[in-house]
Amino acid sequence: MEIVIGIIAGILTSISMVPQLIKVIKEKDVANLSPIMITILLGGVSMWVVYGVLLKEWPIILSNAFSVLVNATLLTYYFFYRERT
Amino acid sequence: MEIVIGIIAGILTSISMVPQLIKVIKEKDVANLSPIMITILLGGVSMWVVYGVLLKEWPIILSNAFSVLVNATLLTYYFFYRERT
Repeated sequence: MEIVIGIIAGILTSISMVPQLIKVIKEKDVANLSPIMITILLGGVSMWVVYGVLLKEWPIILSNAFSVLVNATLLTYYFFYRERT
Repeated sequence: MEIVIGIIAGILTSISMVPQLIKVIKEKDVANLSPIMITILLGGVSMWVVYGVLLKEWPIILSNAFSVLVNATLLTYYFFYRERT
């Protein structure tokens, strides 16, 4: 039962990150991004991955690994495009 | 051990939400908010709370309950101030 709820929760929270990522990739507009907050979030979701591994809970591991990917991409784009905006 | 990592992860991910919330509350500027994405995220973090309850894992419950609060506030501000921006 939990695994189903965890997977749905993970899918929903992952979906909610996608529009911002697409917007940043398409428009290279990083003006609204806060590198400090993304770094803090990146630290947090990385620790959630460790937490999920320790608990052997795939929903936590996968959804937070996706979030690591998204936020690492946002941070890369920020440092790559911040001068040009 | 997991509980410490979960608590730190929860604190970091919660901190990363605060600046946007403060900005919206202070400036009443909801132009950048997407009600659809906030609703999806709200659904997701609510399910993470249920997931945490089922697993009896307080770090998951508390951090996602905080996220429910933050996103419910953002959504309320969006509907309250969208006309005036």
